[in-house]
Amino acid sequence: MLNKLSDLNICSQDDFVTALANVFEYSPWIAEQAAALRPFAGVNELFAAMKSAVDRAPEELRLALIRAHPDLASKTQRAAGLTAESNAEQNSAGLDRLSDPEFVAFERVNDAYRAKFGFPYVVCVRRHTRDSILRDFERRLPNDAKAEAQTSIGEICRIAALRLDQLVASEDKLPVHGRLSTHVLDTHSGRPAAGIAVELTELSELGEARVVAGAVTNSDGRTDQPLIGGRPVPIGRYELAFHVGAYFADRGVPLSDPPFLDRIPLHFSVSDPEAHLHVPLLVTPWSYATYRGS
Amino acid sequence: MLNKLSDLNICSQDDFVTALANVFEYSPWIAEQAAALRPFAGVNELFAAMKSAVDRAPEELRLALIRAHPDLASKTQRAAGLTAESNAEQNSAGLDRLSDPEFVAFERVNDAYRAKFGFPYVVCVRRHTRDSILRDFERRLPNDAKAEAQTSIGEICRIAALRLDQLVASEDKLPVHGRLSTHVLDTHSGRPAAGIAVELTELSELGEARVVAGAVTNSDGRTDQPLIGGRPVPIGRYELAFHVGAYFADRGVPLSDPPFLDRIPLHFSVSDPEAHLHVPLLVTPWSYATYRGS
Amino acid sequence: MLNKLSDLNICSQDDFVTALANVFEYSPWIAEQAAALRPFAGVNELFAAMKSAVDRAPEELRLALIRAHPDLASKTQRAAGLTAESNAEQNSAGLDRLSDPEFVAFERVNDAYRAKFGFPYVVCVRRHTRDSILRDFERRLPNDAKAEAQTSIGEICRIAALRLDQLVASEDKLPVHGRLSTHVLDTHSGRPAAGIAVELTELSELGEARVVAGAVTNSDGRTDQPLIGGRPVPIGRYELAFHVGAYFADRGVPLSDPPFLDRIPLHFSVSDPEAHLHVPLLVTPWSYATYRGS
Amino acid sequence: MLNKLSDLNICSQDDFVTALANVFEYSPWIAEQAAALRPFAGVNELFAAMKSAVDRAPEELRLALIRAHPDLASKTQRAAGLTAESNAEQNSAGLDRLSDPEFVAFERVNDAYRAKFGFPYVVCVRRHTRDSILRDFERRLPNDAKAEAQTSIGEICRIAALRLDQLVASEDKLPVHGRLSTHVLDTHSGRPAAGIAVELTELSELGEARVVAGAVTNSDGRTDQPLIGGRPVPIGRYELAFHVGAYFADRGVPLSDPPFLDRIPLHFSVSDPEAHLHVPLLVTPWSYATYRGS
Repeated sequence: MLNKLSDLNICSQDDFVTALANVFEYSPWIAEQAAALRPFAGVNELFAAMKSAVDRAPEELRLALIRAHPDLASKTQRAAGLTAESNAEQNSAGLDRLSDPEFVAFERVNDAYRAKFGFPYVVCVRRHTRDSILRDFERRLPNDAKAEAQTSIGEICRIAALRLDQLVASEDKLPVHGRLSTHVLDTHSGRPAAGIAVELTELSELGEARVVAGAVTNSDGRTDQPLIGGRPVPIGRYELAFHVGAYFADRGVPLSDPPFLDRIPLHFSVSDPEAHLHVPLLVTPWSYATYRGS
Repeated sequence: MLNKLSDLNICSQDDFVTALANVFEYSPWIAEQAAALRPFAGVNELFAAMKSAVDRAPEELRLALIRAHPDLASKTQRAAGLTAESNAEQNSAGLDRLSDPEFVAFERVNDAYRAKFGFPYVVCVRRHTRDSILRDFERRLPNDAKAEAQTSIGEICRIAALRLDQLVASEDKLPVHGRLSTHVLDTHSGRPAAGIAVELTELSELGEARVVAGAVTNSDGRTDQPLIGGRPVPIGRYELAFHVGAYFADRGVPLSDPPFLDRIPLHFSVSDPEAHLHVPLLVTPWSYATYRGS
Repeated sequence: MLNKLSDLNICSQDDFVTALANVFEYSPWIAEQAAALRPFAGVNELFAAMKSAVDRAPEELRLALIRAHPDLASKTQRAAGLTAESNAEQNSAGLDRLSDPEFVAFERVNDAYRAKFGFPYVVCVRRHTRDSILRDFERRLPNDAKAEAQTSIGEICRIAALRLDQLVASEDKLPVHGRLSTHVLDTHSGRPAAGIAVELTELSELGEARVVAGAVTNSDGRTDQPLIGGRPVPIGRYELAFHVGAYFADRGVPLSDPPFLDRIPLHFSVSDPEAHLHVPLLVTPWSYATYRGS
Repeated sequence: MLNKLSDLNICSQDDFVTALANVFEYSPWIAEQAAALRPFAGVNELFAAMKSAVDRAPEELRLALIRAHPDLASKTQRAAGLTAESNAEQNSAGLDRLSDPEFVAFERVNDAYRAKFGFPYVVCVRRHTRDSILRDFERRLPNDAKAEAQTSIGEICRIAALRLDQLVASEDKLPVHGRLSTHVLDTHSGRPAAGIAVELTELSELGEARVVAGAVTNSDGRTDQPLIGGRPVPIGRYELAFHVGAYFADRGVPLSDPPFLDRIPLHFSVSDPEAHLHVPLLVTPWSYATYRGS
């Protein structure tokens, strides 16, 4: 599915439009306008051309673009069929596995929003968790229609940038990826803590917590891969848990019974999906510290 | 119900025995033997006299003392009626409010233990949580009968010391109390953090977590009363949670949205019920640290 | 030298004035005025009466009070003889042991100040170090004479409060004492660190550093006495050093050679002489932390 | 002066020996033996060949190799002329700028050692500070001659590896470099601390402290270059100081007067010259922490 930018720069207009038709949901006209501006020096330039087509479009067309989007978490629309892109995006945030209270809340969002504005609530779900979508909705609902149309177009461009990032291979990269990493330093022995099981869980107010990553620290006290990387780190609340009791017991360190510290949960929120967020742990059997690092 | 030791030293033997009859469950003979040794310089000396009566008793009588104790969490026995002391003790550990899986586990404990040893499983429940009782049982079940009889007598003496502590006022104190305290230091402003809501929750593997204390920090960053004091701190796993998001927001400190840190949970275990355990929090909006203090 | 307030309340006016004559340097008239207002419920009330006498005094008398004070660190005046109180106060800040550059700096202070204002530079030296006196002078020199007279009277009242505190025993206390304390927590073993040698040194820009306290931590990880207590903690820069290398080596903890941490110096400044400043150390052989506590 | 390994592999034996004659002090015979084993796949293989020549050499020749080395810090020998390599090595540890007590101590080392063993004390000075050389000498002096000859050869090989590393360019690297780095995290604002002045000073018991590196932290809170890199980190005691008072004042953070923390000195020792030692600072205006990181 990955297209080299160099190929896209020289292929036929039809092939170009076919490749990028769904970067903007059901709106191939945007790819068509961009096709005429080839060649692009990089994917950022290509994205700017597509965004510019949206920005220049008449009001009516922009509203049609917004209306081309499905409701979030709508069972009826899912049954009727979404674009593959919308489907994957909604699943990434777990919108296909909502708890009943969450489902009710999302239905309320969609209905209240449509009733007020006459177009669906659109948000770039890959940058969000279930909780943060509901919070975003609460914030946006009091807005007026003009501001909301503008906000929706902004979200649509974020969705498009992420789709384009997955479709096009280029030397430059769109600034759409964040990273969440950790590091465990054993300050009892003065070394990186290797072999510590780590779990990252997305917390939720209305639904169930979801484990989103798990790893074991390597000899450098880090995980081989970032806990989240190569994509936005969704806005939301998380628990990062470290199984330090077993680690110290395995090393023969004298512990109390039961050990004072065993599974250490760190709770924190992500607010900037495209940033690098580093959440380390400095730990002995009797103390620990963490901080927002970079 | 509180008796002055000076009064107990000079009252009639009958009154003395009546006052202390239930220090050892259904076993007034122990108070009778102690009565003859009056006067006592302090409650520790009184307890030593009672313990000595138990230690000197013939095997048969010591077994009868063990058998005088009820099963833990037995609905049948509770319905038939426990001593007020046993009832209060079992309720203190929440044995009257077990979840179904916990109830099943306790029934298994009692039955397996009775079947092997011919006497009930006795433990000083005021020093324990539901989880630690089940763990204690798992450890003791493989023992032989002689060792278990000895262990049971030890636990009975711990029960007795706590009952005596509540019955007798003396200048000296029995060493049966522990303490759990906290302290919040705001290292962003370099001051004790006042007005932070704190909750202490007993965690459980089979049952529900139970909130066991709640407080708001005072101008010294401490709670006016220790989270647990004037009694043993039950062996078990706990969560101590601090609502720091509201604290920093109220002070106008610039935060991310949502705030990086909001409700901070510390998870730790208690292993020594009679010790002073201090679990402080050093916190900024972007970092925190804790340690086992004293 | 200590007089009970109850005795001062009923003794003759002469005895009262004799006892308190030097609370204000060479100015027994202040004690005389206060004598007429006896009895005093406490030492704070007595001090308020004396301060009120100063506040009500005519300008001329207030200037005379200021002029009654000696220059700081003046060898000539010391040779000619100071009051016992002035002598002890100046020695407390080490003004009798100045380095040559410090001596030159103090001479410059006194001369420039006298030249501009016509009265000596007065400061409550028990609240200061050599460095902070010189800094205070730099700040006050640009003031106008009226403001400086007012500031000097304020300093004189601080001097008087400290003298009165040492002369009069009362149930209430004047709020003139601060405290500097420490605490060492060994987070490698999860216990207070006992037996750690601690030194407090006053740092100086122009002169030599002066060791002002030394102690060894007790079983609670604290020093038996506060490092500074029962007096103001002088404004200034300090080093608090902890000999942790020997401590961990003595306990058989595996260390690098030479040990990563050996003598740990903490450098901090005191700004509020009447406050309780707590500077603890949390330490393993490979890490440490400190903070301004309370 | 840098020779490509590929060139050394094909040049004449004479050129090869000329290039590497002084890798081992005044001992070209080692390069001669290695020349015959060309070509070498890498510099590690070349070094192994030279080391093997030393290991295989008869006792007499090995002693001559040791005796070819100059005394440390000998003014007489320096006046008479050292090899350029020896001169640069001794200067790197400051042996050309010793204090009088240090000079006396070094003279004592050399004389006592020569008197006992009949050959000079040899140590790889690039891995040491003045203090650690004197400490090393104290440890080695009680040894017997055979053990010392062996130790000396080991040190000579370390010297040779460092000389070879500077003489030969190869894709592989000899494992002779360590690194000392730092990182300042401002946990008051939750960001890397940019613009903090940092100084690294070598501490000394007998002589003066020597500033060995200075830098200002960049936007990532790090120094653009490691404090020490591309060479061994000399064994010894160091102070790493951070000017945090100016940093927080510049950012408008409310501080006490004088600021509680201003220049923060961290004192630590280096024990493994070839390792990567990371000494970070986590800091607010009221607290800080450090640890041995990696």
